[in-house]
Amino acid sequence: MSEHPIGPASAAVTVSPLGRTDVERAARELAGRVWRTPVVRCEPLDAVAGAHLWLKAENLQRGGSFKVRGALLAVDELARAGSRGVIAQSTGNHAIAVALAAREHRLPATLVLPSDAPPTKIRRIRETGAEVVTAGTLLSERTAVVAELRERHGYDPVDPYQNPRVVLGQATATAELLGQVAAEGVRLDAVVVPVGGGSAVAGACLATGRSGPAVIGAEPEAVPALTAALDAGRPVTVPARYTVADGLRPDRIGALPFDLARRGVTSVVTVREEAIIDALRAAFLRARLVIEPAAATALAAALAHAADHGGEVGVLLSGGNVEPGLVASLLAGRDSPV
Amino acid sequence: MSEHPIGPASAAVTVSPLGRTDVERAARELAGRVWRTPVVRCEPLDAVAGAHLWLKAENLQRGGSFKVRGALLAVDELARAGSRGVIAQSTGNHAIAVALAAREHRLPATLVLPSDAPPTKIRRIRETGAEVVTAGTLLSERTAVVAELRERHGYDPVDPYQNPRVVLGQATATAELLGQVAAEGVRLDAVVVPVGGGSAVAGACLATGRSGPAVIGAEPEAVPALTAALDAGRPVTVPARYTVADGLRPDRIGALPFDLARRGVTSVVTVREEAIIDALRAAFLRARLVIEPAAATALAAALAHAADHGGEVGVLLSGGNVEPGLVASLLAGRDSPV
Repeated sequence: MSEHPIGPASAAVTVSPLGRTDVERAARELAGRVWRTPVVRCEPLDAVAGAHLWLKAENLQRGGSFKVRGALLAVDELARAGSRGVIAQSTGNHAIAVALAAREHRLPATLVLPSDAPPTKIRRIRETGAEVVTAGTLLSERTAVVAELRERHGYDPVDPYQNPRVVLGQATATAELLGQVAAEGVRLDAVVVPVGGGSAVAGACLATGRSGPAVIGAEPEAVPALTAALDAGRPVTVPARYTVADGLRPDRIGALPFDLARRGVTSVVTVREEAIIDALRAAFLRARLVIEPAAATALAAALAHAADHGGEVGVLLSGGNVEPGLVASLLAGRDSPV
Repeated sequence: MSEHPIGPASAAVTVSPLGRTDVERAARELAGRVWRTPVVRCEPLDAVAGAHLWLKAENLQRGGSFKVRGALLAVDELARAGSRGVIAQSTGNHAIAVALAAREHRLPATLVLPSDAPPTKIRRIRETGAEVVTAGTLLSERTAVVAELRERHGYDPVDPYQNPRVVLGQATATAELLGQVAAEGVRLDAVVVPVGGGSAVAGACLATGRSGPAVIGAEPEAVPALTAALDAGRPVTVPARYTVADGLRPDRIGALPFDLARRGVTSVVTVREEAIIDALRAAFLRARLVIEPAAATALAAALAHAADHGGEVGVLLSGGNVEPGLVASLLAGRDSPV
């Protein structure tokens, strides 16, 4: 695992019009419609990290991930505008979230997932009554199918990374974490969030603002889309290598998340596959939480680097939609793992 | 699964001197020393139950179960009295809890567990530095060893069922649940708690009082110690049959818990092994919580009977110290379980 501190952004960056007051408004719109998920403490994990970890358990959120926040805000707006149906591409959790949001508005929904998406995620979407289409394994393959189906059905797309209301919704998870920790009389030094297409890290940058805790992005070493974008000064497509963190497989960071992240992120940690697996197992055995590999990527980064960023560190456990078979294989025959 | 309503107690019962003000005092003593564990909501489980379930996630508690509450109160008192060390028998969670409490007071501790106790529980005790002794599989075998070691070392026993401070501590879990649900503007119609030696159900009776929600005890059909005691009008030893719910294997209800339960319990549900397993799997896949079979016994009873007791039902998820290998075997090859 390695950490890349981020230098100051160039003066020429586009300034996003989104700010903390937008996040506060988003939180008010979502009140009573999403669970106020708990912040879980776990002494054995603190001992490993050498810091106090504040685990924002969005694995316990409706639909099993924080993505329902952004999807509700985005689909609300489309429904108000008279949408006839919605369509979205996703590695899985945004699709589940859009399907739930569409059901609340009684809108038809079509979701485009990679052909290697976890069966559990596909099942959760179909349970809502939405339609699932699979298309290749690359982000570009899914977006092409979205464009084609959008033309054919006249459905409105809900982009998981570029839609400002999606990013604002995801920001409410970090904002809620900060508020819950503050209510315990503690000020976080840093928050660690997983990086896939970038909505979580962009949301964290919005929620923390300039004077808040440091924002640490955590991405698989196999798919370092944010690290590559920061190095290049713009979003770039990275080679599509395998990672167990199916939610973090997008091979390119979105333009809007990149704009927010380049100005707000303190550092990016790239996490090896083995560390992701170890963190998933530790969450299970020590924190008694079922998390998916994307969330475990953030936890792994926190376990390794939290102490470098101060004593009080928040971790966005982004989701819990993990394959039962994967967990079974991680637990079988491991008597003394952590 | 079958449910046994309880008739009015005879006029001749002993009146326990414990009451709700004692529970409130216990909660104040524990404030800041145990986690205020979250109450988790889960729509897919609500749909199965036909009721709103409010899951008190004591699997996320320090030591992985609610038992740390009673153990801290009891060991505090012994430490104040100048104890040289503590000893306790337990199926596992009370032992982990006493070991943690002893460590806080820098007291040596010896814990007596059945020879078939889960290795994970034994490992958690040894991590605290405490000593583990195993003795047979029956409650009577463990209590005999406690008496012998007590004599030899001069350690003070911490009985898991008979010590009033243990029962008061366990009562704070249910009291906290009632308070957390009330803060959401909801009044519970019933709480479902697992029954082993009886401290959880006795605590629930104390916490709810006469005008509170109904108290439903859930015990394995294989070891119906409370049902048998209520039928007999006194604690009786039941045949020691196997149950996967290792925490609910005590073959006899304690006298103090029985005294409280016979006056406070509304009904007792006996749960089949298969239903315990199904509930454990559902908690994992749907609520993303790692629970142990004892907690799953309460959840199973709630899933089957909550709707009979009103729309708002609390469930004490008592602990999360489950064998990884057991979970692995439940999850392996089950693609579409719930």
